Amino acid sequence: MSRFEVNAQRLERTIEELASIGKQALGVTRLPLSAEDLQARRYVMQLMTEAGLAITVDPVGNIYGKRLRAADPSLPSVVTGSHICTGTCYGKYDGTVGVLGALEAVRLLNEHDVTTVFPIEVAVFTAEEPQRFKAFMPGSQCVAGKLSLEDLQRYKDDDGVTFWDALVKAGYHPDNLAAARRTRETMKAYVEMHIEQGRVLDDLRKSIGIVTAVAAPTRFTLTITGRADHSGATPMGLRKDALCAAAEIILALEAFGQAEASHSSVATVGYIKAEPGSVVVVPGKASMSVDIRGVDPASKHRVVDNAVKKIQEVSARRQVKIETQMIYDTDPVPLSDSIIATIKETADELGIDALMMPSGAGHDAQQMANFTDAGMIFLPSVEGISHNPQEYTRLEDIVLGTKLLVHVLLKLGGEA
Amino acid sequence: MSRFEVNAQRLERTIEELASIGKQALGVTRLPLSAEDLQARRYVMQLMTEAGLAITVDPVGNIYGKRLRAADPSLPSVVTGSHICTGTCYGKYDGTVGVLGALEAVRLLNEHDVTTVFPIEVAVFTAEEPQRFKAFMPGSQCVAGKLSLEDLQRYKDDDGVTFWDALVKAGYHPDNLAAARRTRETMKAYVEMHIEQGRVLDDLRKSIGIVTAVAAPTRFTLTITGRADHSGATPMGLRKDALCAAAEIILALEAFGQAEASHSSVATVGYIKAEPGSVVVVPGKASMSVDIRGVDPASKHRVVDNAVKKIQEVSARRQVKIETQMIYDTDPVPLSDSIIATIKETADELGIDALMMPSGAGHDAQQMANFTDAGMIFLPSVEGISHNPQEYTRLEDIVLGTKLLVHVLLKLGGEA
Repeated sequence: MSRFEVNAQRLERTIEELASIGKQALGVTRLPLSAEDLQARRYVMQLMTEAGLAITVDPVGNIYGKRLRAADPSLPSVVTGSHICTGTCYGKYDGTVGVLGALEAVRLLNEHDVTTVFPIEVAVFTAEEPQRFKAFMPGSQCVAGKLSLEDLQRYKDDDGVTFWDALVKAGYHPDNLAAARRTRETMKAYVEMHIEQGRVLDDLRKSIGIVTAVAAPTRFTLTITGRADHSGATPMGLRKDALCAAAEIILALEAFGQAEASHSSVATVGYIKAEPGSVVVVPGKASMSVDIRGVDPASKHRVVDNAVKKIQEVSARRQVKIETQMIYDTDPVPLSDSIIATIKETADELGIDALMMPSGAGHDAQQMANFTDAGMIFLPSVEGISHNPQEYTRLEDIVLGTKLLVHVLLKLGGEA
Repeated sequence: MSRFEVNAQRLERTIEELASIGKQALGVTRLPLSAEDLQARRYVMQLMTEAGLAITVDPVGNIYGKRLRAADPSLPSVVTGSHICTGTCYGKYDGTVGVLGALEAVRLLNEHDVTTVFPIEVAVFTAEEPQRFKAFMPGSQCVAGKLSLEDLQRYKDDDGVTFWDALVKAGYHPDNLAAARRTRETMKAYVEMHIEQGRVLDDLRKSIGIVTAVAAPTRFTLTITGRADHSGATPMGLRKDALCAAAEIILALEAFGQAEASHSSVATVGYIKAEPGSVVVVPGKASMSVDIRGVDPASKHRVVDNAVKKIQEVSARRQVKIETQMIYDTDPVPLSDSIIATIKETADELGIDALMMPSGAGHDAQQMANFTDAGMIFLPSVEGISHNPQEYTRLEDIVLGTKLLVHVLLKLGGEA
């Protein structure tokens, strides 16, 4: 069915070579704009050069390698890529398969002497991983024109180094921020291959997912204040137990998420602390995190609204004070129907049984979706493990995804 | 109604003088057998001597001051007392009001030239507070013959000093442990005045409580193992959320406690930890403490049984592993009906509107109850605060309790 035979060995070698940069006893660490990240960028640019791509680096360090073998290289590009930065002790596949798979796709096009109508570009976005700068994918946000110079100066790592300073130190020119902006006039379409980071594909034994929308989190903390009392000497009826109030909210959130399961909304309490935290004291205070995500805005809003109502109801009934601090509140990003259809059609042609699915995690693609047609191809994460040295995606699945990617790129770029 | 006029000033002075020993910027610290505790013991023995009491100190440091003005000093004693040790930064009233109130009662008997049939004794028990040696009131347990030499050598403080070593260093002779044992033949009855440490009396604006039974804790920890997953990428239906399982158990325990409210049983989760504890990770593990107490054995057992059933049910339904580690499992101790009746009758005679109530916290009296008739008088803790520098019991309530105590002692000891 396919004229392109992905070179699995070659692709695997680049994955291992990239993983050797920042490799530690446990996992891979390439914090954005660290020495390791910069070394990894040089490695990828070397691969781009070897593949004959023309490299440009924008003011915030986003790297583009453009394939010039196009009918008119001045036409808007079909862009594919992802990120190569990591958090501490991450795995080998998150982000990297999207960049290295794209490069393999380019090599296949080269080997088959394909000339496209629209040029193909491979992109590497800066700082998709938020651990260092606590910023929400600022590299790709700048491409969408969403950040200001002030934003770049505001994001700081734990040592007080700003994102701006780190960019300057790496040799980039953030003061030219406006030049990082791309539009539909320079980017016809965007396709990103990425590992799922969840267990849906693995559980269903599917090799390929086609992302329909990227969930956006509404994230807040709750601080519940009841009254600390002696656990032996305080009858049940005289208590204002902050942890019991928290437990009610935890279970309500779970139920609200479950009720919206058909819309793929989820609600999670990942962190909780009861104070004073003694075995023999009724908790006077409880703090907890709430993370609500969804790809269907109406569904996600129902979960948030229900949560707010439940919090008020619990507060009133139990006579505990509940303070809410919003951390993050964004809307889900639907991906392009036409790209989704193109990926689906291509998968069908290749005999791939792909699953249409939402993405729970955030990705650079959602920033591109602000101004152009964007889509994503998901690969299975074994056991759903990600952000962890045990993160694993089978080579055969990466090969299959890359085969799908090259055909999708060709369809979007057109053969000249 | 009363021939005895409690000297409030004198009683208050001894409370303040004792509180000055081990006083810190925040609260009072007299860990068992510490230099401060030993100094406090010397102070109390000085007060005993001034009140004409004959002092004996048993092999584990329990101090008895015996009033010799009795028809026959060789008859079994009516004993009253409590403890004077504390945890770190405790208040001025826990334990001490029972010892200093008893001494004031003796002074009143002396001032009125009262000779009793049975001798009166004032007791100070060693190490009632468990913070230093993590032992459950070993001083009074030895009086009840419940501990072995090995037990005394097993209890250790954080520096590795055993209870035994600390006793020897303080000049006591734990190797004579058997001599610490008392029986009904040497202790006719025991009455302890103590602050409530809960908020029941304060809420009801009562000055006196008569304790019907001392609750005993069943205390265990639960470790729940589910599966840590990405909070965005894992649909609700694929989760094994350890914290949601914990929340169900927390609320079930609360409901079980509430259902037994008429029997005064209580259930508390004071400590919880979710792991990894990240906002964006479904908790794979949750650890929590469970503290169940009650004075009615059948009621308390119902709570424990229901908890065990619920834990099994949650574990099976949610497919999470739940491990239970028992820390402490004891039965409630009913106090003596005859002593309770004597205190009640005396309170009525004095026009005191006393509340019959259980004790949620443990007390030396529960050890005496193993071999003789034991009772307790509770005084209100303002706001229920205890084990805290803010612990407060009004002087007027201590005075009223002391008046009740002296009359009860006289009734139990008989006037010659």
